Amino acid sequence: MVMQEGASEEQIDRVIDALVRMRLAVHRSTGVSRTVIGVVGNTGAIDPASVEILDGVHEVLRVSQPYKLASRAFTPDDTVVTVGDVRIGGDEVIVAAGPCAAETEEQVEATAAAVKRAGAKLLRGGAFKPRSSPYAFQGLGEEGLQMLRRAADRHGLPLVSEVMDVAQIEVVSRYADILQVGARNMQNFTLLRELGLVRKPVLLKRGISATIEEWLLSAEYVLAGGNRDVILCERGIRTFENATRNTLDLSAIPVVKKVSHLPVVVDPSHGTGRRDKVVPMARAAVAAGADGLLVEVHCNPDQALSDGAQSLYPAQFDDLMGELRIIGPAIGRRVCVKTGSGLKAQGSGPTEGSELKAQGSGLAEGSER
Amino acid sequence: MVMQEGASEEQIDRVIDALVRMRLAVHRSTGVSRTVIGVVGNTGAIDPASVEILDGVHEVLRVSQPYKLASRAFTPDDTVVTVGDVRIGGDEVIVAAGPCAAETEEQVEATAAAVKRAGAKLLRGGAFKPRSSPYAFQGLGEEGLQMLRRAADRHGLPLVSEVMDVAQIEVVSRYADILQVGARNMQNFTLLRELGLVRKPVLLKRGISATIEEWLLSAEYVLAGGNRDVILCERGIRTFENATRNTLDLSAIPVVKKVSHLPVVVDPSHGTGRRDKVVPMARAAVAAGADGLLVEVHCNPDQALSDGAQSLYPAQFDDLMGELRIIGPAIGRRVCVKTGSGLKAQGSGPTEGSELKAQGSGLAEGSER
Amino acid sequence: MVMQEGASEEQIDRVIDALVRMRLAVHRSTGVSRTVIGVVGNTGAIDPASVEILDGVHEVLRVSQPYKLASRAFTPDDTVVTVGDVRIGGDEVIVAAGPCAAETEEQVEATAAAVKRAGAKLLRGGAFKPRSSPYAFQGLGEEGLQMLRRAADRHGLPLVSEVMDVAQIEVVSRYADILQVGARNMQNFTLLRELGLVRKPVLLKRGISATIEEWLLSAEYVLAGGNRDVILCERGIRTFENATRNTLDLSAIPVVKKVSHLPVVVDPSHGTGRRDKVVPMARAAVAAGADGLLVEVHCNPDQALSDGAQSLYPAQFDDLMGELRIIGPAIGRRVCVKTGSGLKAQGSGPTEGSELKAQGSGLAEGSER
Amino acid sequence: MVMQEGASEEQIDRVIDALVRMRLAVHRSTGVSRTVIGVVGNTGAIDPASVEILDGVHEVLRVSQPYKLASRAFTPDDTVVTVGDVRIGGDEVIVAAGPCAAETEEQVEATAAAVKRAGAKLLRGGAFKPRSSPYAFQGLGEEGLQMLRRAADRHGLPLVSEVMDVAQIEVVSRYADILQVGARNMQNFTLLRELGLVRKPVLLKRGISATIEEWLLSAEYVLAGGNRDVILCERGIRTFENATRNTLDLSAIPVVKKVSHLPVVVDPSHGTGRRDKVVPMARAAVAAGADGLLVEVHCNPDQALSDGAQSLYPAQFDDLMGELRIIGPAIGRRVCVKTGSGLKAQGSGPTEGSELKAQGSGLAEGSER
Repeated sequence: MVMQEGASEEQIDRVIDALVRMRLAVHRSTGVSRTVIGVVGNTGAIDPASVEILDGVHEVLRVSQPYKLASRAFTPDDTVVTVGDVRIGGDEVIVAAGPCAAETEEQVEATAAAVKRAGAKLLRGGAFKPRSSPYAFQGLGEEGLQMLRRAADRHGLPLVSEVMDVAQIEVVSRYADILQVGARNMQNFTLLRELGLVRKPVLLKRGISATIEEWLLSAEYVLAGGNRDVILCERGIRTFENATRNTLDLSAIPVVKKVSHLPVVVDPSHGTGRRDKVVPMARAAVAAGADGLLVEVHCNPDQALSDGAQSLYPAQFDDLMGELRIIGPAIGRRVCVKTGSGLKAQGSGPTEGSELKAQGSGLAEGSER
Repeated sequence: MVMQEGASEEQIDRVIDALVRMRLAVHRSTGVSRTVIGVVGNTGAIDPASVEILDGVHEVLRVSQPYKLASRAFTPDDTVVTVGDVRIGGDEVIVAAGPCAAETEEQVEATAAAVKRAGAKLLRGGAFKPRSSPYAFQGLGEEGLQMLRRAADRHGLPLVSEVMDVAQIEVVSRYADILQVGARNMQNFTLLRELGLVRKPVLLKRGISATIEEWLLSAEYVLAGGNRDVILCERGIRTFENATRNTLDLSAIPVVKKVSHLPVVVDPSHGTGRRDKVVPMARAAVAAGADGLLVEVHCNPDQALSDGAQSLYPAQFDDLMGELRIIGPAIGRRVCVKTGSGLKAQGSGPTEGSELKAQGSGLAEGSER
Repeated sequence: MVMQEGASEEQIDRVIDALVRMRLAVHRSTGVSRTVIGVVGNTGAIDPASVEILDGVHEVLRVSQPYKLASRAFTPDDTVVTVGDVRIGGDEVIVAAGPCAAETEEQVEATAAAVKRAGAKLLRGGAFKPRSSPYAFQGLGEEGLQMLRRAADRHGLPLVSEVMDVAQIEVVSRYADILQVGARNMQNFTLLRELGLVRKPVLLKRGISATIEEWLLSAEYVLAGGNRDVILCERGIRTFENATRNTLDLSAIPVVKKVSHLPVVVDPSHGTGRRDKVVPMARAAVAAGADGLLVEVHCNPDQALSDGAQSLYPAQFDDLMGELRIIGPAIGRRVCVKTGSGLKAQGSGPTEGSELKAQGSGLAEGSER
Repeated sequence: MVMQEGASEEQIDRVIDALVRMRLAVHRSTGVSRTVIGVVGNTGAIDPASVEILDGVHEVLRVSQPYKLASRAFTPDDTVVTVGDVRIGGDEVIVAAGPCAAETEEQVEATAAAVKRAGAKLLRGGAFKPRSSPYAFQGLGEEGLQMLRRAADRHGLPLVSEVMDVAQIEVVSRYADILQVGARNMQNFTLLRELGLVRKPVLLKRGISATIEEWLLSAEYVLAGGNRDVILCERGIRTFENATRNTLDLSAIPVVKKVSHLPVVVDPSHGTGRRDKVVPMARAAVAAGADGLLVEVHCNPDQALSDGAQSLYPAQFDDLMGELRIIGPAIGRRVCVKTGSGLKAQGSGPTEGSELKAQGSGLAEGSER
């Protein structure tokens, strides 16, 4: 707390009193032109503005981060979230792919088969869709979840699906392996608090106007409830630029990696809103150090009921996966190593080369980050 | 829909097919260098991006607004929301005031008495508080609502209070006269949809990163459910400027007034986050044409449990009301006309409301807006 | 400078060394979990990031403002800029009005006559126009300045006109009384430095993406050159909202008033870009405490060569002036007092100022409009 | 131009008249609920707002881009800017590196040697530095240019350096091979116009609040003057997020690539402002399809006089180059192919450039790292 130049003793005493009332330890340091008052204690609960407004206070500067469980200071080692045999935040970059929304059994199956073939490790797909307009398609609900679950099972892919509301937690949990919180709900604190009590990983998208600090505070709500499996997901922030739907903030990746131990993935589909921008930004996200991607793929995007414009064709997704596998070694990581019953790896043609390459740098992965 | 220069006939046909599949009427206009395809129908449900991505399409331009019930085209006359004898959106500027959060019986009572004395027409106060940090004070819940209700009744002030979640609608409705949706919940569509079924006015705050169009689309969710009493509330948007908590977007007032018939009020307390900025911005909001204000007042702001820094002292609020009354005639309106000592509380009914209105249209304004 | 928890003694020493090399006085304070290093000296020249990047440093917090001559700490009393008998920053709100660009002798004269009649105290008008597109009208140059000067002289209105470049300073100074720096040039440091050597007041518009701190730093460039007559002008910042051309940041007024002694005026014409938004925002600016306005008026806006859409019709401007005069007493100020033919010069002293003010609150509202 | 529902014939006629006066060809299309007026001609010079404000007009939508020479519609093939044997915009990704500012002969030489060794193809370095504060280091001027030129010659690296002002063009042109326009000068139209007459390539940084369209319009100023060698440079935009200095908008790369033929490079140093973010964002930029990078490297960043915090250590830069070479094949490009021991400096001519290109498309990626 920095006092104004020439603040009176009385003003300084009044500030110290206010801080003591808040049960904080106070340490005064009197400088030549200004007095600075240091404060120790549970400052996370204090609004700096409430002190800044006191007479004679020039500025209040926060020294420690307002979140704790989400901070790397508290947990120095990277958190790895495990779902089945998929490890998010480890040495492999994990790609989740699938349709924006489940529409029909055939569409879900065709898309799931395609993304599995290309090497995706998770199936993503929505059954409850938040839409700006009340007149837009809102998802199939539980029926959609059933379609997604069946396809997930058929292809051995854990399922990520969105939960919009406390009331939906129960039904979505029954079908999905990872519960996604959408950008618009990033500060739906009731929902976050409930998800802290759930025993499934939570994928928390960043709100389009949320600072990284607020995003981590929202993660803190879930963590504080006892659920330590939080995956952060950058999906673009709102800026003045309208050439893309949002501005994908890839710098958030190294920033989060420094201050937090939580894995961070990127959704280039919602972040750009245009198919022809998804591929370059997906590559960029991996190159910037993302632990994974969430990519919309649709077996027939031109007829999708929602977000068709940003869904990749299966062949585009397959090409993208090949490109990502080339990038992997640049960051000392593998990207969606093909596994399955050996059969799959054989038929992969051009991408097999990149596998070889990944093997080549096999030593590398031991040490990263 | 504007095609690229040199788009082929085949591309044009493919686009027309896609539009027809969406059940839209299509009208083609072939220009010298470009072909333009006009589309009529329920375009609100269509994502422009899904068409823009088709081969040969240069750009998709939306001609009509995506909301309907909220638009002035649909309802040319101003909506006036009536609560007891308070009319929001009429010829009187209405000020709601009170503490950020209910803390104690004494605090609520002292503040309510002060704001009533200064001429406020509504009591505002929160019992459920959305907070960025899980460690901050989260409100007293139903106990707080009871305190607020008792003070509201004692002073004849209808009560505005926030509802954060579908599950809270029932309890908040029991005590409050106007249900407030906070900025973070502006796109909590489940909540909005439920509020469409409620028989109480809804005060819908603008999200800090919401465009005016998105804000009106959220209002549309409530209106579409059958609840026509929606009050919009501007409370600041997030920009790069950090000298104030948010940037209060007062231009939103004339913009909303042009495209919508709904009343719009301004919350300068959250919009600025600093007491010394609240008073000038409150004056500015009224001068810009706001139908009302939401102002935080606290009987002892230095000890407030939340948002103390932005709460006015009762004496400041009283001065502000005096200043607003001077500004009123500049916009052809009255501001919180004082209604005599406690008499008002007795005769609050629709009849007095109409009387007041008759008076209003008698003097002053004649021509307003 | 806040060290990380667990920073080693060696890291701390290295940081202290770096600071000492920068010739700063250093004061170390060792806390339970963290060490904080205080720094005193000419810190304005230091990039916080260059220290923040050192090993073991958690964060660098700036305590004092990086500008000095522009700060209220340095000059507690309000600066009043005087041009002829017009005093900007005093107890009268000053309105400058006129065409966006000088086009013809007739247009300039008709507009100047109209704004004078309505009570404007300054004539504004451009001869050199910065335009985003190389294909747009770029102004008449010196010929335009001559037209403006003749009209200014005929109506006894000091002239404000823009200078875009060092090379233009000489010619614009020959005709204009106040030199305007446009938003796009707010960080044209070569230009600012030269204007520091000029003996005419400078009206410095805020860049559309400039923080208030950067704006004051740009003012500091002019002040540091020896020119103390700087007028700040808020004209809107760029945000995600596109319903208005920019978002007029009226909160900047009370913010600037607190940290600086310089007068601040508002340009609602460029800030909104739409005529129907100019009037409400002009009223709001005055209500928020602006020292003046810059308003575009055009005798025939529909045929203006630039910015016609935001230019007021003379009759609209006249009405606006009436409304502003009503608002004046709410902020304890007069607004462009009408002075009749030549009488104006008579009694400009602090005493008459107060007298006039007393009058204002007495009759005021009866006559205007 | 979309008319309001129910616009009168008279209003429509008035709008058509206004357009005809602007010498535009007009085509009217009368729909069921609305009339749309199409306009053809030199619309680049028209402010949409000036028509939108006319009575009865609902909205004005721009169909064609306001720039022409910069557009891909006008020039379908990629522009390759050639400087010596360096080709920017071709199949090789070009990295420019060097100190933020020239400080001493030794510093410039040591840094140039290091970046050359790591494979950089261009030397970057400033002699005239635009600084927010008048009290910060402003560069060495011509002396700095001489140091940079000598180092550039010694290492066979073409030189990129910033020009802040028309008056500096002559001196900077004498030493530098590519003239850089900084972000703050992106709309210094006088400067841009002069650079259109110069016979050296111009590297045009995007303003921190400039839309992509405005950036291309600024490029149009240079192109319209006759200088076709414009390189665009993304360096971050201003958003609400403060964890990084700016938000590097990598989506701008695919956007620009679609609408323009000009090469686009990325400056991750200024875009992030922090050394530990530069490396991941440099990788991401190349993965997103950038034609090159501008990276700050300093032989001793802890003692740099400006921007030390964002300058890489030589060893970091060397590692980065290795990582970029791995990424290259993912986008079908080579990254700064090493050209053997000093030979290149001797034979720098356009011919060798073409040779290199031929080679590149032949073997490409086999050898890197």
